[in-house]
Amino acid sequence: MSKKPLRIGLAGLGTVGGGLIALIDGADATLAGQVEIVGVTANSRSRDRGFDISKYRWFDDAAALATDPEVDVYVELMGGSDGAAKHSVEAALKAGKNVVTANKALLAEHGLALAALAELQGRQLRYEAAVAGGIPIIKALREGLSANRITGIAGILNGTCNYILTTMESTGRTFGDVLAEAQRLGYAEADPTLDVSGADAAHKVSILAALAFGGAPNYAGVQTQGIQEIQPIDLEAARGLGRRIRLVARAVLVDGAVEQTVRPLLLPADHPIARAEGPLNAVVVDGVPIGRLTLVGRGAGAGPTASAVAADLIDLIHGDERPVFAAPVAGNAGPKAAAPGTGRSRFYVRLRVADRPGVIAAITETLARHEVSIESFMQRPIESAAQVPIILTTQTCDEAIIARALSEIASLPAVVEAPCLLRLED
Amino acid sequence: MSKKPLRIGLAGLGTVGGGLIALIDGADATLAGQVEIVGVTANSRSRDRGFDISKYRWFDDAAALATDPEVDVYVELMGGSDGAAKHSVEAALKAGKNVVTANKALLAEHGLALAALAELQGRQLRYEAAVAGGIPIIKALREGLSANRITGIAGILNGTCNYILTTMESTGRTFGDVLAEAQRLGYAEADPTLDVSGADAAHKVSILAALAFGGAPNYAGVQTQGIQEIQPIDLEAARGLGRRIRLVARAVLVDGAVEQTVRPLLLPADHPIARAEGPLNAVVVDGVPIGRLTLVGRGAGAGPTASAVAADLIDLIHGDERPVFAAPVAGNAGPKAAAPGTGRSRFYVRLRVADRPGVIAAITETLARHEVSIESFMQRPIESAAQVPIILTTQTCDEAIIARALSEIASLPAVVEAPCLLRLED
Repeated sequence: MSKKPLRIGLAGLGTVGGGLIALIDGADATLAGQVEIVGVTANSRSRDRGFDISKYRWFDDAAALATDPEVDVYVELMGGSDGAAKHSVEAALKAGKNVVTANKALLAEHGLALAALAELQGRQLRYEAAVAGGIPIIKALREGLSANRITGIAGILNGTCNYILTTMESTGRTFGDVLAEAQRLGYAEADPTLDVSGADAAHKVSILAALAFGGAPNYAGVQTQGIQEIQPIDLEAARGLGRRIRLVARAVLVDGAVEQTVRPLLLPADHPIARAEGPLNAVVVDGVPIGRLTLVGRGAGAGPTASAVAADLIDLIHGDERPVFAAPVAGNAGPKAAAPGTGRSRFYVRLRVADRPGVIAAITETLARHEVSIESFMQRPIESAAQVPIILTTQTCDEAIIARALSEIASLPAVVEAPCLLRLED
Repeated sequence: MSKKPLRIGLAGLGTVGGGLIALIDGADATLAGQVEIVGVTANSRSRDRGFDISKYRWFDDAAALATDPEVDVYVELMGGSDGAAKHSVEAALKAGKNVVTANKALLAEHGLALAALAELQGRQLRYEAAVAGGIPIIKALREGLSANRITGIAGILNGTCNYILTTMESTGRTFGDVLAEAQRLGYAEADPTLDVSGADAAHKVSILAALAFGGAPNYAGVQTQGIQEIQPIDLEAARGLGRRIRLVARAVLVDGAVEQTVRPLLLPADHPIARAEGPLNAVVVDGVPIGRLTLVGRGAGAGPTASAVAADLIDLIHGDERPVFAAPVAGNAGPKAAAPGTGRSRFYVRLRVADRPGVIAAITETLARHEVSIESFMQRPIESAAQVPIILTTQTCDEAIIARALSEIASLPAVVEAPCLLRLED
C-alpha cells in the first residue's frame, strides 16, 4: 500500500471540486498521501472560491490538462453534456488516462460512445458521484448486487424537487414561492429547469438502468413529467388519501423491456421513498435473490459528492477493473425500451371548473363513456364562483384511455384549467 | 473478461451453500461461466438437501478441500468460531488461497490473527455475507465511504430479534410465545441463545467497528444486553411514549475511543432504525463529509446471503485487493476501547411491586437520593394484589448512578421482580 500517490488533473472548481480539494489537501484530508493534484482548470482562474488554488499548476484548456503526461486520472467536475466536458473526457481516454466524473448529463447522453471508447482503450470510466451524491448506489448495483437479476429501481434522485415538494407539503405554500426560497438557500439553480422538469432525474435513472439491465444509458427513452404543475391542493388531497407526492425516477423490466419514467407519484405515506424528506435522496432496488434493498442519504452538496468522487479514486488505486456499465457495450445493445404510455394504474385527477349546473354530470359521463371507473370523488370548497376544485381518483385503467377522456373533459367550456393527472401507486 | 472461471471449494451445504449453488449452477445462474465448483464438503454427505451435490467432488475434510491444488478460492459457509471452520480457513490462507466466508463468529473472535495471516500471505479474506446478509454494508464501509471519517454506526443486525420484538409489539404476545413461533417458522434456531442474548449482533458490530475505525474486531469489548427480559408491557409503554424498542448494535467514537454496545433501546417511532419491521436489517452510518447514510434490506436467508458471497467472488475476479479491515493490522492496533458503563442517557425503568402503602415513596426517595430526576411516572393497572407494574422514565443521568439506585430499589421487600432498565435515545 506504499505506492506513489495517484496523480489527478482536476477540471471544475465549484462546490464539488472544492470538496475534493478538502479531502486531498484539507486539514482533515482522508486522501492525503494517496492522491495528489498535479493540475487544475476551471472557467475562471481568479474567482474567489474560498479555497486556495495557487499551489496547483493552472491549465486554461481542459483537454490539455486531461492529456498532460503527469496526469494518471482525469477528474471531470465541470458538468454539461457537451462542450469542454465531453471533449476533455474523450481526450483523456484517447490519451490512455482513467477518468472519474460526476457528470450525469454527459453519461446519460453520450454514455454509449464514451463506454465504447473506454473499452477500446482498456481504461476505466467511473462515476459514483453522478447519481445520488453520497449514496453509493453505483457501487451497490455494479458490485454489491452483481450476482442479482435486478427487476426494478425506483427513487428520489433530485434533492431540489424533493425539497420543494416536502416544503410545499409541510407549509401549504405554492411551487413558485418555495422554488424562490430554494434558490435563495442554494438548493436550486438560478435556472431551475433541469431540476424541476425532471430532466436531471431522467439523466440519472438512465444511468442506473444501464447498470441494472445492460446496454448503455437511453436518456431519450425516459418518459418525463416535472413538478411544475403540482399545487398545494394536490399535496393536501394526497395527505387526505394517506399518501405523499414524490418525484419518482424509475426503471423497471416489463416483459423483458425496460420502462424508464420520471414523474410525480402519489405513494403510500409509509413507503420508503415517501418517507424521504427535504433534500434527501432515496433509492429502492428490487432484485433476485436479494429481495428489496433501500438506501437513503444526501444526494448533493460538496461533502457527499466529493466523498463519491474519492471512492472512485480509491477503487482505481486498488486496481479494481469493471466494464463502464453492467457489461461491455460493444455488441451488447441491452434490452429494448418499453413502448411509452401503455401502462395501467390507478390515477389522481385534479380539475378546476366553473360553478354552474351540469358540470359534474358532464365530467362523470365522459369518464363513464371511456369506461374509467371513479373510486373517490371530492368537490372541494369553492375558491371563487369561477373556480371550484374537483379531486377524483380512479380504479385501475389504461393511461392512454384516461388521457383521452381527460382531453375531452379539458375541452368542456366549464373546465377552466388544464387537468392535472398523476398516478397512484403502491 | 473471458478469463477461465474462478474455481471454488465450497465448505458448508446448508441454506446459504444451497443459495450459492443455485447462483452458480441453477436454472437462473448469474454466476454461470464465471465461477465453478471444484469440490464440496459438509457435515453429512448423504443428507437430503433439496439440491443435488452428486456432480461435485466430495471431501470429508474441510482443510483438504481448502488446500486442494484445483481450488482458487475457499468458500467457508460452515459457521462456528473455532473447529473445522477456523482450521480450514487458516489452512487455505497458508496454502496461498483467497478466502470468502460468511462466518461472523470466526471473524469477530479471531479477526486479528486471520487478517495478519492473510496479509503475510498476500491473500484476500472477504466476508460481505458475515454482516447484514443482502445489505452491502461491508462494501459500503470499506469502499464506498473510504474517504470518510466515520463517527458512528448503528443498526439492527439480527433479524431474529427484530422479528420477535416487532411481533410482540404488534400482537401483545410474550417473548417465549413469539420465540417458539419463530422457531417453527425457521426464523430462530433450535438453540436461540446466540441470537436473543445479543451475541450474534455483537459479533457483527465488532466487525463493522474494525472496518469503520481501524484495528481488528474487538468482540470481547462489546457491552451486550439481550432481549429476553423484554415484556409486552414494555413495548406497549414505549408506544405510549412515541417510541419503539429495537435491539440496536452500535459502535461510536467517543473522545477517540470506540464504544461498542448491543442493547434494546427505546427509539423515536420515526427513527430509520425503529421503522425496520419483521426480519429486516437496517444500518445507519454517520460520517464526515458524507453525513448520514441508511441502508435497509434482508439480513438473512439463502438468497440475500448467497448474493453477498457471490459479490465477494466477483470482486476477486475483477482483481480488487484491499486490507481485510480498514487498514493492515500489522502494527496497527486501532483506537482504544471506551470504558464500559460510563455513558449518560435518559432511561426507562419497569418495576413490579406489591400493592402496599409507602412503596412508591420508597422508590422515588431512593432515586432522589441518587440525584436521578424522574421525567415521567406511570402506575399501570394492577395485575394482581402482589403485582403492580410501574413504568418510569428519567432525565439524563449516569448509567452507573441509576444502576446503583436500581440495585437498592431491587432490594426493597415490596419489589417483586428484578427491575428492567433500558435506554431512551434520540
